[in-house]
Amino acid sequence: MKTNQPEYCTFPLTELLKLLDTGAVTVPEIIRSYYHRIAEREPEVLAWQYLVSQENYLAQYEAQREFYEQSALKGLPFAVKDVIDTAHIPTRMGSDIHNLRIPAMDASCVTAIKAAGGIVMGKTVTTEFAYFKAGKTNNPHDKTRTPGGSSSGSAAAVADFMVPFAFGTQTAASVIRPAAYCGSVGYVGSKNEYSLRNIQPLAQSLDSLGIISNDVNDTLFIRNILLQKSPAAVSLPSSLRFSSFDGSALGPIEDGMALALQNFVGKLSQQGHQAQVFEHSDAIAELTTLHGDIMAYEVARNLVYETSTGQISAQLNDLIKTGLALPYEAYVAKVARVEVLKQALLQWWQQHNIDVLIAPAAPGVAPLKETGTGAPFMSRPWQVLGLPTVTIPLTNTGTLPLAVQLIGKPKSDDFILTAAGVLAQAQ
Amino acid sequence: MKTNQPEYCTFPLTELLKLLDTGAVTVPEIIRSYYHRIAEREPEVLAWQYLVSQENYLAQYEAQREFYEQSALKGLPFAVKDVIDTAHIPTRMGSDIHNLRIPAMDASCVTAIKAAGGIVMGKTVTTEFAYFKAGKTNNPHDKTRTPGGSSSGSAAAVADFMVPFAFGTQTAASVIRPAAYCGSVGYVGSKNEYSLRNIQPLAQSLDSLGIISNDVNDTLFIRNILLQKSPAAVSLPSSLRFSSFDGSALGPIEDGMALALQNFVGKLSQQGHQAQVFEHSDAIAELTTLHGDIMAYEVARNLVYETSTGQISAQLNDLIKTGLALPYEAYVAKVARVEVLKQALLQWWQQHNIDVLIAPAAPGVAPLKETGTGAPFMSRPWQVLGLPTVTIPLTNTGTLPLAVQLIGKPKSDDFILTAAGVLAQAQ
Repeated sequence: MKTNQPEYCTFPLTELLKLLDTGAVTVPEIIRSYYHRIAEREPEVLAWQYLVSQENYLAQYEAQREFYEQSALKGLPFAVKDVIDTAHIPTRMGSDIHNLRIPAMDASCVTAIKAAGGIVMGKTVTTEFAYFKAGKTNNPHDKTRTPGGSSSGSAAAVADFMVPFAFGTQTAASVIRPAAYCGSVGYVGSKNEYSLRNIQPLAQSLDSLGIISNDVNDTLFIRNILLQKSPAAVSLPSSLRFSSFDGSALGPIEDGMALALQNFVGKLSQQGHQAQVFEHSDAIAELTTLHGDIMAYEVARNLVYETSTGQISAQLNDLIKTGLALPYEAYVAKVARVEVLKQALLQWWQQHNIDVLIAPAAPGVAPLKETGTGAPFMSRPWQVLGLPTVTIPLTNTGTLPLAVQLIGKPKSDDFILTAAGVLAQAQ
Repeated sequence: MKTNQPEYCTFPLTELLKLLDTGAVTVPEIIRSYYHRIAEREPEVLAWQYLVSQENYLAQYEAQREFYEQSALKGLPFAVKDVIDTAHIPTRMGSDIHNLRIPAMDASCVTAIKAAGGIVMGKTVTTEFAYFKAGKTNNPHDKTRTPGGSSSGSAAAVADFMVPFAFGTQTAASVIRPAAYCGSVGYVGSKNEYSLRNIQPLAQSLDSLGIISNDVNDTLFIRNILLQKSPAAVSLPSSLRFSSFDGSALGPIEDGMALALQNFVGKLSQQGHQAQVFEHSDAIAELTTLHGDIMAYEVARNLVYETSTGQISAQLNDLIKTGLALPYEAYVAKVARVEVLKQALLQWWQQHNIDVLIAPAAPGVAPLKETGTGAPFMSRPWQVLGLPTVTIPLTNTGTLPLAVQLIGKPKSDDFILTAAGVLAQAQ
């Protein structure tokens, strides 16, 4: 069913909005482009847990056409990870326990986007309760590979141009890793940056909202809608100070990833950006372990109902057993230790005038599906520190995506997103 | 309908559990005592938004009698503030917008108590979305007075012996103030202490779970169930180091409250506890303002749906307008400023080896209903710092309750709860 129309589904959201403003395209034309893509690709990718039909989507649009025409998002679609509640649309959290669960209310991030003229296209596959047990989704670049977890469907659907952006959540590595594996742009907000209302939590001190798109400008656009704010006037220094952490202190990094990071950092230096030696590898390794323990403790006290059903996976059950075995006093000591390491890291960061940290977004390319959803260690330390992170997909000669991530100081979300846009051009 | 039975409804929970263990009383006898009390008092107090009937309660108990007999809570009742979701029981958040809302899932705090053998007796009145617009509840000590907000029904129902304990939530002063006004023991957990799953949030960086009871040992008992932990082995020094803050830097404190605090502190000193002069009044005053601004910013981005309905109160609408008018950069600066003041306060706290801070729990006694739910300023600073707090009801010669609060270092919840039990005896 080839047409002569441009493949609108591959355009960034913000570009589509400009085209709509000029009348060069209509919303139904764009929508049909997405659904055409979905019809072609979904049988292989399996990104969707629940998909609104094209007919229903267009009917929703037509029913409130005037509202959409005057709105910021014009009636364009977005996808929602299936741990984020959507009114009257099932939200089953990747678990049969909640097969019949249909929330009455939207999560506030969904409300905000709908109020700005976005339309929910569907729910994207998550691992079981956003932990490790994989859903059905395949990596769009190679169906024998994992898309990463837990925001598996969000990262795959966006990377494969089925939808321009999607919400995800991250407690360990659940946005950054799947975005890296699928080649989309993953962003995780600073601690407490966004309302998490009616997002089903996994671990209260670690959960963050994430946005996945194919263009960091789209991410900034969505972020501003969520926070009901004007675009930030970020003035990036022409010469950024960065410090790069190769991740080898945390676990095995594939040669391809190590080399890609090295090349990327080399190009930054060539372009006049200044490198500062990273001095906190030991602390970051310790934070990675602390993250795992704190997560286990909190998950065990959060998924009380699900645990009681006896219907959770063996791997989630193991996590909960570990968490229940951790004494409260040990948990408190670990939380306090994070605070000590955080203060030291931020002081060093400040003293050296560093703008951003750079690290691998994942240990390498997406592994084979049978091995799971990939190792989360490259995100754990930043997540326990509550720092904002964003991926930069790397150009590479292989068939599978690789990415680095920028890590920012607390609440420097606008800065790192803007920097990611600039540094992505460095390649 | 006087009986010769003891008034079981006035007994602490932990005492009732002991009596049940010895066979001195049965669960149905205790339940009838609560419902008898409710029948007498509810027409005047109006603490309940939704009440399970005695018949239904006892039927629930009988249907799973064996489970309850072997459980920690034996089938005894608890109440749940109506912003905390309860499966198949309406949760309307003090707003007509959600009149028909019946959650499919319990909040995790409710699940944990039910799993330990507690039975939901009903939902207690909250102010509109846990902000300031009062519900129907009257102060049980004087029906012309407010019970305080926002956990109005929880504090009143417990203080009036209708239920042994209740859950509340605090974003500004919503547990400590109503507990103080009603004469019950209010406790607010450290930041991130408990899972807030399926508790409808107000402001993500400030919301905390609270427990209201009539005995701090009951509070500790419930806390340990929530955290699935053994009782903490807290060794209190025989001579505690405390620093008392009179609150006058934050707003007008009634003479009766000022005097009661002075007497309480005097008695502590007589009994060998050591006072340290409080040196951070200016910082605490600044934190009170910062709290208000941060709350306004976050609420405005959280209650997006409700705001869009046009059915929120004028006072909530004012808060949201204030929050929307606050630029993101100003919000971020305020969050950063809190962190600076927190570090300085904690350093002083550490240097002087202080165990607890003591302050008025509210500016005085419960004001008349027509003036609102009382001033929240005595809780705002500790709340923005994420510190645990607990009230100590004071013996006083007036007809209306007064209370001080203990404020602890981060995650010192077990310590301050244990200290509150000891210091309450100091009077």
